Amino acid sequence: MNSYNFSNFVLYSYWRSSSSWRVRIALNLKNIPYQVHPVHLLKAEHNTIEFSEKNPIQKIPVLEFTSQDNQKNYLAESLAICEFLEEISDFKLLPQDIVQRAKVRAFCSEIACNIQPIQNLPVLNRIQEIGSNKMDWAKEWITKGFESVEKLLSSSKGKYSFGDELSLADAFLIPQIYNARRFGVEMVKFPNIVEIEKNLSTLEAFIQAHPDNQPDFEGNK
Amino acid sequence: MNSYNFSNFVLYSYWRSSSSWRVRIALNLKNIPYQVHPVHLLKAEHNTIEFSEKNPIQKIPVLEFTSQDNQKNYLAESLAICEFLEEISDFKLLPQDIVQRAKVRAFCSEIACNIQPIQNLPVLNRIQEIGSNKMDWAKEWITKGFESVEKLLSSSKGKYSFGDELSLADAFLIPQIYNARRFGVEMVKFPNIVEIEKNLSTLEAFIQAHPDNQPDFEGNK
Repeated sequence: MNSYNFSNFVLYSYWRSSSSWRVRIALNLKNIPYQVHPVHLLKAEHNTIEFSEKNPIQKIPVLEFTSQDNQKNYLAESLAICEFLEEISDFKLLPQDIVQRAKVRAFCSEIACNIQPIQNLPVLNRIQEIGSNKMDWAKEWITKGFESVEKLLSSSKGKYSFGDELSLADAFLIPQIYNARRFGVEMVKFPNIVEIEKNLSTLEAFIQAHPDNQPDFEGNK
Repeated sequence: MNSYNFSNFVLYSYWRSSSSWRVRIALNLKNIPYQVHPVHLLKAEHNTIEFSEKNPIQKIPVLEFTSQDNQKNYLAESLAICEFLEEISDFKLLPQDIVQRAKVRAFCSEIACNIQPIQNLPVLNRIQEIGSNKMDWAKEWITKGFESVEKLLSSSKGKYSFGDELSLADAFLIPQIYNARRFGVEMVKFPNIVEIEKNLSTLEAFIQAHPDNQPDFEGNK
């Protein structure tokens, strides 16, 4: 399964957290068995002392695993976790070509650094507190970000985000589309994104990673 | 210099852009020669048609270089560029140990995904437009983020962010400290961060990368 003899993978995850979802997709595509341990963000379960021992900065996702010396390890941050999974598994989600690898990583950063953090729950709550509309804020920034993503895809896409091979870009794109719809982004403006979503939506790794199929799923409200 | 025969490195950079600055530090530490090509963000030079040919989504930094087939290549996003530089150069800024590599990457993500984007210029401008104080907003989010960074450093730091070896974490930390001071963050709350800053501040690679030493430096106002 992996060449480093790591075992007992547990993903601390929240069904609707898009950064947890990215990691679920990567784990599924790489066929690495793992348990999901739900952490309820709205009930502040990430703020407990128990969870701070897994991640001192109290964010999900966290990937737990046992190393050969029987030690438990904890990794945080979806980009870092995905790079780690890339290094331990043979099924690659980054292209072999060194320049193309950088392009896929840049695509992931566009979502993980430039879109999602600005529409993240703590930011939206603060936007509401300062008297602005959090739904409008989220919609505006995701729309702006998707204009960039749509442009990137126009030169990179095939069946998936980068040609006809699955990549980390796909694992980062799908959860962001879910957020886009949730905040009312007009997806008709983004035909490349919608086409790739359609092609990915039938793949088992993506179906299993979907919020609706998580043990802590609470219904779409 | 690098094992891939890439040459003629040009960094499209703005003196005060913290994501450009991260790449300048990495290039300097790796001893990769490059030219700085200034792109004036406040004069919207990144929005020209000419620049869109280098980066269709019109952001800096962009790293240009020539490959063996004499083609010009352009890479965007500081995290992706730094991973690329890591792959082509022998002076490593990620530890050899696979779990430690992930910890350094998570640290970089904390800054590149969770702090800097929320205090980025376009977000601050929008905060002002909706009638809130952009300086307060930036100070608040950097302070919150630095509380996390300070915690991470308490278990990782030596002379630098991760033990006594220079790493990508240091390249990401220093520009964020500059932004923190600019927005009035009370740095006295963060003794670990301040100590590492002091240890890094005398290194030539960091001095050369500083905004004050850029060709497009405009003075500290």
